[in-house]
Amino acid sequence: MAQMLRLAVKIVLLVELVFFVQSKVTRQKRHIAKPNIILLLADDMGYGDLASYGHPTQEYGPVDYMAQNGLKFMQAYSSDSVCSPSRAALLTGRLPVRTGVWGEGHRVFLPWLTTGLPREEITIAEALQGLGYTTGMVGKWHLGINKYNHSDGYHLPTHHGFDFVGHIIPFGGSYSCDNSGRYGDTPDPGKCFLYYGDDIVQQPYYQENLTVSFVNDITGFLRANKDNPFFFYFAMMHPHAPLFSSAQFKGSSRRGRYGDNINELGWAVGSVIEELESLGIDEKTLVIFMSDHGPHLESCLEGGHQGIFRGYKSNSFEGGYRVPLISYWPGTISPGITHEIFSALDLYGIFLDLAGGQLPTDKAYDCVNGAEVLLGKEEASRNFILFYNRDVLFAVRYDNYKVHFLTQEDLTIEQISFQCLPPGYPANGNYFNCNEKNASLHECITEHDPPLIFDLDKDPTESWPLDPSEHGQLLDDINELLVEHRKNLVRGRPLMDDTDFSVVPCCNVNNGCYCNFPEPEPSKI
Amino acid sequence: MAQMLRLAVKIVLLVELVFFVQSKVTRQKRHIAKPNIILLLADDMGYGDLASYGHPTQEYGPVDYMAQNGLKFMQAYSSDSVCSPSRAALLTGRLPVRTGVWGEGHRVFLPWLTTGLPREEITIAEALQGLGYTTGMVGKWHLGINKYNHSDGYHLPTHHGFDFVGHIIPFGGSYSCDNSGRYGDTPDPGKCFLYYGDDIVQQPYYQENLTVSFVNDITGFLRANKDNPFFFYFAMMHPHAPLFSSAQFKGSSRRGRYGDNINELGWAVGSVIEELESLGIDEKTLVIFMSDHGPHLESCLEGGHQGIFRGYKSNSFEGGYRVPLISYWPGTISPGITHEIFSALDLYGIFLDLAGGQLPTDKAYDCVNGAEVLLGKEEASRNFILFYNRDVLFAVRYDNYKVHFLTQEDLTIEQISFQCLPPGYPANGNYFNCNEKNASLHECITEHDPPLIFDLDKDPTESWPLDPSEHGQLLDDINELLVEHRKNLVRGRPLMDDTDFSVVPCCNVNNGCYCNFPEPEPSKI
Repeated sequence: MAQMLRLAVKIVLLVELVFFVQSKVTRQKRHIAKPNIILLLADDMGYGDLASYGHPTQEYGPVDYMAQNGLKFMQAYSSDSVCSPSRAALLTGRLPVRTGVWGEGHRVFLPWLTTGLPREEITIAEALQGLGYTTGMVGKWHLGINKYNHSDGYHLPTHHGFDFVGHIIPFGGSYSCDNSGRYGDTPDPGKCFLYYGDDIVQQPYYQENLTVSFVNDITGFLRANKDNPFFFYFAMMHPHAPLFSSAQFKGSSRRGRYGDNINELGWAVGSVIEELESLGIDEKTLVIFMSDHGPHLESCLEGGHQGIFRGYKSNSFEGGYRVPLISYWPGTISPGITHEIFSALDLYGIFLDLAGGQLPTDKAYDCVNGAEVLLGKEEASRNFILFYNRDVLFAVRYDNYKVHFLTQEDLTIEQISFQCLPPGYPANGNYFNCNEKNASLHECITEHDPPLIFDLDKDPTESWPLDPSEHGQLLDDINELLVEHRKNLVRGRPLMDDTDFSVVPCCNVNNGCYCNFPEPEPSKI
Repeated sequence: MAQMLRLAVKIVLLVELVFFVQSKVTRQKRHIAKPNIILLLADDMGYGDLASYGHPTQEYGPVDYMAQNGLKFMQAYSSDSVCSPSRAALLTGRLPVRTGVWGEGHRVFLPWLTTGLPREEITIAEALQGLGYTTGMVGKWHLGINKYNHSDGYHLPTHHGFDFVGHIIPFGGSYSCDNSGRYGDTPDPGKCFLYYGDDIVQQPYYQENLTVSFVNDITGFLRANKDNPFFFYFAMMHPHAPLFSSAQFKGSSRRGRYGDNINELGWAVGSVIEELESLGIDEKTLVIFMSDHGPHLESCLEGGHQGIFRGYKSNSFEGGYRVPLISYWPGTISPGITHEIFSALDLYGIFLDLAGGQLPTDKAYDCVNGAEVLLGKEEASRNFILFYNRDVLFAVRYDNYKVHFLTQEDLTIEQISFQCLPPGYPANGNYFNCNEKNASLHECITEHDPPLIFDLDKDPTESWPLDPSEHGQLLDDINELLVEHRKNLVRGRPLMDDTDFSVVPCCNVNNGCYCNFPEPEPSKI
């Protein structure tokens, strides 16, 4: 203990030096080859939602246990501030502006679009398959469903490198899928589809036990594949509104329904960690926990909290992009906190590297940090983050500076409250301030010329702009970075404008698309 | 590890039950009798200022080590929202409205007041002396200096039960004591006095090495008294503005000058913990770390952060009162997080109890929680917090509800910025919005009738008021609590209106009160 304390005392002064020395001395990789990889993705969880990230009333749970016994990132970023582009980038290592995961009208895939993540993109699952990994997923997909008709499943994860696909929600979670009666005449069969693999098993679905189903799927997969190297992508529905939880977690949190959600999410995470331990493969498995982007503040008390940051889901302030991220690998990753800059975009290259592969050279990838950063053994080589909104670059983080060229209006709690019913329940449906198709300059988007500059180290809340005239070199450096970035930027065709209502999934056209099939016999691959 | 994880999984559901069972089964005290007690008090540190409480850029340091290896309180409260009353209550276990530590004109003791903490109050140091403890203090006193002339030292800590008094600052830290040139013609000998025991050793003082002096004093005391039971009160100057640090910590933090301050504070805390270990008395010593109240937001980036809470130093929103608090006692306190409601006012009774004494019955005390709450072995018996501003009760926390009868205007960052120079430096001196002598209703204080009610568990940011008509029982319960409270409330005579400039300390009237004596030979008692 004395030794740990002395280390803690010295960290204050030596952290940079330690990283420097480590990066020089311990170049040799100390981790085992071809570890199993599990990616646990929370949906809409804010930076400030966990006890381990400072929430004052949320219960301590298994995610906090991971944070205490793994590496807790304080400066990790999602790859976009809304669901579909964030997930597309996470799975491909490529910015949405490259893959086309954006549109004029929408920022996420809706069930009546004929598009999805393009098949020519090589997902991390596909890449790992090629390196001998067995791959699986459960949970929220949100990267497209059908292309030609209501049941072709052209865009589903089975076509993107997943050997095993358990229960998935290809769209959602939408308020239309709530079955509490709180949000009108729901759940809506036109928006709420539960699949198992390629097949609809429930339309509309009932939310309560989704997490239990996901956990059953993943524990089954782990048992069946404990001797292979495997990759599993668990895209949780929690804590995205509309909130739900199984009976076991209803009322479990002092924080209310949102806290119940986090607690059930924690139970799911704990179940995975426990299963790895009881199978004796925990020291052969890297587990990543992270959120897909910032919290949906417009869900009032049914949404999460961004910690001390400005902004939230859907915008380019830190609150939209800064997320909790924990890497956990007993025996390989030492417990600690890191302030290295990390992006969800880095995971693609890191997973490939750990599996013994390397980035393809056929197209541009946005991975920068190497595996040793994720393992806490090297300092980051990434010193920038690009904040896109659709295909437009709104802001750049460069070293400790954040430079905004454009900002969306970010509402205060008071301004948001007009769409909340007392005491803090969302009045109705999904809101996204300043995300409408025709949101434009001078309406709710402001152009900054010269740009707005903040020092994120000193001023993480983006409150005190710096004088641009004193930061000419910074702006030159960023300009150079962007010239380079744009040089190899092949823009994808925007995918979210191709509407055709005939592709909306329907399990049974003769029955108004209502179905409730018996649970399938689980395939574990 | 598997066992710890399973525990974490179960905590979600079992936390209340576990506390309940523990409180029944483990009534017997498992700690040693008459432990040493060290109280480490930070000055103006906000709830969100530490890495362990979620700050995204502050370095991990020894305080975080304490949090990880001790009991971290998520719902701890200071006893007032400004310095003097908070400290008076901490040391006496009695609300400032009882002891008179307030005034019409001021809320803190100024050097030209003839008053201080009344001698008839029995400080915790005095009480522990009576139980065989050797007592000591260093750091900021702020509970009065002289009574009759410029050097009688009538109110100094030697008259309040401290056997050893090392380097102390009886007033401050004031912007007038900054010697950077940033705040005008400073340091001012009329406000800036460094004492050793009862004697001025430097007037005006130079801040840089104060923390080093404090640490030298306490480590000397620990070595000299390792075989006695002792009580030590280390009232740090950090991280109160104006910021300073010794050369060793200048530039040590990515967060800038404020972060340097927290790092030096961490070094001081680490030095104490290390000294206890090397003397072999760490398992015989209870160490408490806490802040005196919320952060001074009006110091801009030279002030701290309140985490996700509304409000800050000097007001009755959570940000003014909710503080980081960690109890640390290797071998006795198990590492963990607790959500039990705790007040700095409880410490007086707890320290007495641990020392084998009990609360006097001569007057009213405001201690509620027993020692087992501080040690993480019982649930809180305290279910309320009173939020006074001067002698006026502004708000009450009752169970998970916060009820405001009066609120001060709480400025947003944007509103505060008028008194900040870019990029976030305080323009000049101390500001306290809505704390002027004549701050009144309709000017910046709002009366709420019916009161403003928040659910702090669900809505810790006090954003979404509840409907008072649905909380009649709560208001009745609070009314009953207040009737009881007022029944035994003997109001102190307000002490902060007795001005006499002849009592301002002066080390040498023939020399314009400038002195710089050699360091005294340290007395360790």
